[in-house]
Amino acid sequence: MNSYQKSEELFLRAAKVIPEGIYGTRKPGFLLPKASPYFAARGAGGHYWDADGNEFIDFMCGYGPNVLGHAHPEVDAAVRERIERGFSFNQPTEEMVELAERLVRLVPIADWAVFAKNGSDVTTWAIRVAREHTERSKILATKGTYHGSHAWCAAYPAGVLPEDKASIVYFNWNDLAEFERLVETHRGDVAGVIMTPYYHPACAPSVMPAEGFWQGVREICDREGMLIILDDIRVGFRVDIRGSYPVFGIEPDLICHAKAMANGYPIAAAMGTKEVLGAAEAVFLSGTYWYSPMEMVAALTTLRILEETDAIPEIARMGTRLREGLESLGKTHGYNVTVSGPAAIPYLSFDDHPDLYHMQTFCREAIARGVFFHPHHNWYICAAHTDADIDRALEAADAAFRVVREELGG
Amino acid sequence: MNSYQKSEELFLRAAKVIPEGIYGTRKPGFLLPKASPYFAARGAGGHYWDADGNEFIDFMCGYGPNVLGHAHPEVDAAVRERIERGFSFNQPTEEMVELAERLVRLVPIADWAVFAKNGSDVTTWAIRVAREHTERSKILATKGTYHGSHAWCAAYPAGVLPEDKASIVYFNWNDLAEFERLVETHRGDVAGVIMTPYYHPACAPSVMPAEGFWQGVREICDREGMLIILDDIRVGFRVDIRGSYPVFGIEPDLICHAKAMANGYPIAAAMGTKEVLGAAEAVFLSGTYWYSPMEMVAALTTLRILEETDAIPEIARMGTRLREGLESLGKTHGYNVTVSGPAAIPYLSFDDHPDLYHMQTFCREAIARGVFFHPHHNWYICAAHTDADIDRALEAADAAFRVVREELGG
Repeated sequence: MNSYQKSEELFLRAAKVIPEGIYGTRKPGFLLPKASPYFAARGAGGHYWDADGNEFIDFMCGYGPNVLGHAHPEVDAAVRERIERGFSFNQPTEEMVELAERLVRLVPIADWAVFAKNGSDVTTWAIRVAREHTERSKILATKGTYHGSHAWCAAYPAGVLPEDKASIVYFNWNDLAEFERLVETHRGDVAGVIMTPYYHPACAPSVMPAEGFWQGVREICDREGMLIILDDIRVGFRVDIRGSYPVFGIEPDLICHAKAMANGYPIAAAMGTKEVLGAAEAVFLSGTYWYSPMEMVAALTTLRILEETDAIPEIARMGTRLREGLESLGKTHGYNVTVSGPAAIPYLSFDDHPDLYHMQTFCREAIARGVFFHPHHNWYICAAHTDADIDRALEAADAAFRVVREELGG
Repeated sequence: MNSYQKSEELFLRAAKVIPEGIYGTRKPGFLLPKASPYFAARGAGGHYWDADGNEFIDFMCGYGPNVLGHAHPEVDAAVRERIERGFSFNQPTEEMVELAERLVRLVPIADWAVFAKNGSDVTTWAIRVAREHTERSKILATKGTYHGSHAWCAAYPAGVLPEDKASIVYFNWNDLAEFERLVETHRGDVAGVIMTPYYHPACAPSVMPAEGFWQGVREICDREGMLIILDDIRVGFRVDIRGSYPVFGIEPDLICHAKAMANGYPIAAAMGTKEVLGAAEAVFLSGTYWYSPMEMVAALTTLRILEETDAIPEIARMGTRLREGLESLGKTHGYNVTVSGPAAIPYLSFDDHPDLYHMQTFCREAIARGVFFHPHHNWYICAAHTDADIDRALEAADAAFRVVREELGG
């Protein structure tokens, strides 16, 4: 078994000077207290080591950004070179133009791009652009979808005013009839809809768009003068160099990108069509750090590698091997398990045990064997994962399923 | 005269793929179109070079972050070392604990710290914490103060709903009577007040707190159960290693830091007292990139250098030389000019010409002579500025005042 002594010592220190010790998505309570590390130390390729020196095959990839793997030599070399020449300026640099040009070429439906730091920066700005463009206030969104930590999309009520969410109207994923009903209820006051390309909630299987769902949303939006905002932050560039919209047959007006676009460096982008350019020009967007070329060279290098190499198909191949292996092993051990989501972004579920206890036990045992699977959040495959990593992961999964069977039965 | 041909070519390219070509605080229209660069290229110490190779003494410091100057060897070496070991993890690292410990030691009034990317991230979270702590909704704020780009504090109306600002109540800086009246009007529903340590609006002189102003605010807040949120993003760590609160005699409950804390690397921090810890634990705070140790080692190194060296007093000494020199030169050329703000964060005004035309002409001429002064925003001094830089800046100012006199008269 792994020792987490250093993690626990650090957590005790942290608890004295940091609310909750660790806050947000990384808090131990969101993972497996005592059974997974609290603090990381270093990473290389598809692996990382925690504060105690335990090694893991990293199937979370920093919650998505590491699309090429930790400490990627080319990306990091480009960043180092930029750091040496300075990066915190009173003006943007040529790299901002190059990155916008690159993104507009890669994402054919979009005509322009802007840059920020967080996913939340761009999802929030995009709904403001939709409001400005349509001169309407309401935004439709799917229940249980994470669009960031801002008050309008907060999953927890603390510090949120009723007015923060007063103009957000929720419907159920894939329920086109409910979507249409809500549009009717709020007719003339709905600016648009924000959605991820498919449904990836926490603690539940991912759900693909139903046949005709996105087309139906587009038709209703066209008829009603509403915009589609695609939150592509988890999916974009990991499944397709154009982002996810062509894969899922979506025709968005605005697209939000982050995570995989820069292999871990903090940058987000909003993109859009020329029809909404006027509103994009009107809605103020700025941040002291947002013009920095450091993250932009990381994005330029990451996107070039994703475009020029077989990284994206390899990610899909590894993810497919992992999915097929896990589903087969589940069967061997007498469980109906499903790996949902695209191959690059898998999530395992025990079909007959939605209470997650089987899943938590499974992940606890995988983590104990050096394979970092998250029990409550979709996983991520990166281009640094190897066939040997998948082999090792499946070996660990085999042992983990066996323990689940012994401890919890059918 | 400087040529801005490359800047203009880049701007034409940018205009095809980026809303406004350049957006936000860096848009040419916020500076001096045709008379200042649109794109930067590289920096070293207290100087930077634009896309055309023009060199400037950098009195904006990237809008504040560069407190030690561009391309600082020690800060950048610490970052490079961290990048080599990876930085985008599924857990925070030991550096998060170290940075919180360091900040809590440096900022004695605060008992805890959390980290984000943008100043806006922490000002917005802080008002949510104040609301959660007090179970009240209204926030008082001073007219004309920038607290970030989010809708609740947006300076421009596009994409902002009435409800976004419905719970923000504005009063005039230093007007304690108005503050007290508003507290009475909204008695029992005011969570707190957010303010910068002194008033630093755009396009107007900075104003120091009046004698007794902050003490009066504190007394009213204590009496009414309201919190003080100090937005120290521009000022903190540049004027004092404890942040600005002891300098100005402020007793905040929550403090927001960013900019100077990490010499350009993108990080922000919120800090607070143990009394508000419960609310801080309750209000969700998270971002994919926020646990990265890359920016935390930059902050640890920057804060160590600020603490161990004479960087902060040197910044004040350089700023004092610049202020005294500019005020004296103004007099020589027959103008009443005032350099307001702390020495480290100066802003020049022509007392008899608040329309800014004299100021714009002055800055245009200084920029043409290789001294980057901003006509509409406070400036920043950094520890890499030298006596020779101040000498050169004053020579350029002398020439610039002469042109202002020739073109515009008294």
